[in-house]
Amino acid sequence: MEAVKALFEDVKRIRKERPLVHNITNYVVMNSTANALLALGAAPVMAHAFEEVEEMVGIARALVLNIGTLSTPWVASMRKAAEVARERGIPMVLDPVGAGATSMRTATALHLVQEGKPAVVRGNASEILSLHGTSAETKGVESTHESDAAALAARDLAAKEGCVVSVSGVVDYITDGEAVIEVLNGHPMMPRVTGMGCTAAALTGAFAAVNPSALEAAANAMAVMGIAGEVAGKKAEGPGTFQVQFFDALYRLDQSTIRERLKMKRT
Amino acid sequence: MEAVKALFEDVKRIRKERPLVHNITNYVVMNSTANALLALGAAPVMAHAFEEVEEMVGIARALVLNIGTLSTPWVASMRKAAEVARERGIPMVLDPVGAGATSMRTATALHLVQEGKPAVVRGNASEILSLHGTSAETKGVESTHESDAAALAARDLAAKEGCVVSVSGVVDYITDGEAVIEVLNGHPMMPRVTGMGCTAAALTGAFAAVNPSALEAAANAMAVMGIAGEVAGKKAEGPGTFQVQFFDALYRLDQSTIRERLKMKRT
Amino acid sequence: MEAVKALFEDVKRIRKERPLVHNITNYVVMNSTANALLALGAAPVMAHAFEEVEEMVGIARALVLNIGTLSTPWVASMRKAAEVARERGIPMVLDPVGAGATSMRTATALHLVQEGKPAVVRGNASEILSLHGTSAETKGVESTHESDAAALAARDLAAKEGCVVSVSGVVDYITDGEAVIEVLNGHPMMPRVTGMGCTAAALTGAFAAVNPSALEAAANAMAVMGIAGEVAGKKAEGPGTFQVQFFDALYRLDQSTIRERLKMKRT
Repeated sequence: MEAVKALFEDVKRIRKERPLVHNITNYVVMNSTANALLALGAAPVMAHAFEEVEEMVGIARALVLNIGTLSTPWVASMRKAAEVARERGIPMVLDPVGAGATSMRTATALHLVQEGKPAVVRGNASEILSLHGTSAETKGVESTHESDAAALAARDLAAKEGCVVSVSGVVDYITDGEAVIEVLNGHPMMPRVTGMGCTAAALTGAFAAVNPSALEAAANAMAVMGIAGEVAGKKAEGPGTFQVQFFDALYRLDQSTIRERLKMKRT
Repeated sequence: MEAVKALFEDVKRIRKERPLVHNITNYVVMNSTANALLALGAAPVMAHAFEEVEEMVGIARALVLNIGTLSTPWVASMRKAAEVARERGIPMVLDPVGAGATSMRTATALHLVQEGKPAVVRGNASEILSLHGTSAETKGVESTHESDAAALAARDLAAKEGCVVSVSGVVDYITDGEAVIEVLNGHPMMPRVTGMGCTAAALTGAFAAVNPSALEAAANAMAVMGIAGEVAGKKAEGPGTFQVQFFDALYRLDQSTIRERLKMKRT
Repeated sequence: MEAVKALFEDVKRIRKERPLVHNITNYVVMNSTANALLALGAAPVMAHAFEEVEEMVGIARALVLNIGTLSTPWVASMRKAAEVARERGIPMVLDPVGAGATSMRTATALHLVQEGKPAVVRGNASEILSLHGTSAETKGVESTHESDAAALAARDLAAKEGCVVSVSGVVDYITDGEAVIEVLNGHPMMPRVTGMGCTAAALTGAFAAVNPSALEAAANAMAVMGIAGEVAGKKAEGPGTFQVQFFDALYRLDQSTIRERLKMKRT
């Protein structure tokens, strides 16, 4: 019940304060993440030019960096934006899309973790394992589940880098290196819509803008994702209708829906 | 009644002639503005490479420049495209997204207004105030409403630059510096969908392609936006369904819907 | 019946193997083509940085190049990606969007056809005519239909370049220079949604990833496009609902729907 109230308190603050969330994100999801932020109640802005990132970060209440469609000029802008955010105490969320797939992505993500001092790193299991240096090959026979390995990697990475790590999956795993929150909400259609992970990172930015606890912000964002996904999944007949219903669910999210559905465990 | 017929005449011309509208616009809205143009009946093309803008503008019947996700190479292409459009008498619509938020945006928008000689500048109140040099701070106590200040700024800017200024808001205000048209159509869900302003600018391009009066083209575009928004709003349960229904409403727009809904005032 | 089974066999392989399809495509359609690939069952990735294309192509099972929003750095990445794909035997699909409209597009598309050795070139009639060097002016009086001229150009281009050419239209025409497959499926709403041609190219990549016959892969992709379009068209009230229903139809596509609707002719 405490968690339900705390989560809805954050949602109400987002809707009332309409925090500006500055995204430097990938081309694929710009439209859908902007729509998700608007549907929830935040104010998105996308701006990537090196010449303007300092000013734009300066008027934002959160910064979301997403490396899904990298190129060299964008990396420079992300680094600059991260530096400004760090100096001004603006929470930064990093989505290390595809870390591990190419060396450019892994290196960029690692640099942004180490120098950018994100409040939250949000990725899937394989991305977090890659940032931690645990490749699929080196997981060892002890780890019967990838998710177990990812949980270990997440705790380790969070402790080492002094940030929150949020691993999305069937069970979302959010940790600051000590405390752990698990979110069991979600829907099987979510991986069939492009950019749902990126949307989770964008919403994490909105929650981080209004909640000074990065751990709670990250967990509340994942819970809202999962709950909106469940509501959308009831009406959807495929990923097309799912995406549309998902935006509506974010917009219509109320306390009774949260109370009815929230499955969050603290350990 | 005159206004209803004139508006539907433009819509019919767009549907019959399928004018090519060349957009150099922001990444966030490329898909949704292309879909809006297609739904209405126009033919969108997006092309931003400096090497090809001259040829592309040359085969287009309108040019839409939108600075929502600027970078230096895109600014160069926009300037080139504006120059070619001006030389060839192709109407240009400028959407100064975020003017006032960063100096790069304000400077780029001002340059495009002054050198590019747009047929129409379409923005929200704060963008138009920023282009006019009226900051929120300098509005003074006389202006009890931001929209009053924006109306003054729009008239002034239009007269000075010899263009039409179209300010979107609860009441849209369109002026060539002397004549004023106000459009009262619209729906409260519209600001909850990303890029509705950008869509208004894109549709203004389609109307400018078929109507030699920039004032009427701009007003008719805002009326179609507002009417399609009202039709969509009746069926929508949130911004997801709203966006989808909005495209359908543009596609299905007919004279009787316009007659029933149009709220346009000339002064 | 043979064709029905063969097509559904490909769909099942895509859903089971989830082939990674690497897209270097235009900004307008990145979201919708990623969603189409996911809805069908494939795994899309978008990556355009010169620094990472080699690695990314190396882990993909198909490469899709689409020149819809070109710029010089992207052309360099496309050429590099094509080279790597050719060396490693990864099928490449080229969508020459706007070839003929500007010299940059025509030259880039021609270079990618000649040096990149695509498995399939998929375009509309005017793009294929432009690649073939047959301008509208030179079609001659013998060609009473543009589609006749496009069929001749497609056969000729396919034979000369040793690739499959897939021309989309009311009747899709797919040829390797000798054999010809025609697909009669489709819906009149499809040209009213942006990027349907680009989606066809992306799905051609998914089929090429699982079917070693480029001719069959290209034809099966066009058939799935057309059938999903017909299913979507039954529920749609405009291009907004059409797009959403199209994704759902790809996701729900089953053998009985294919059997009921497939209209494919081999000659």
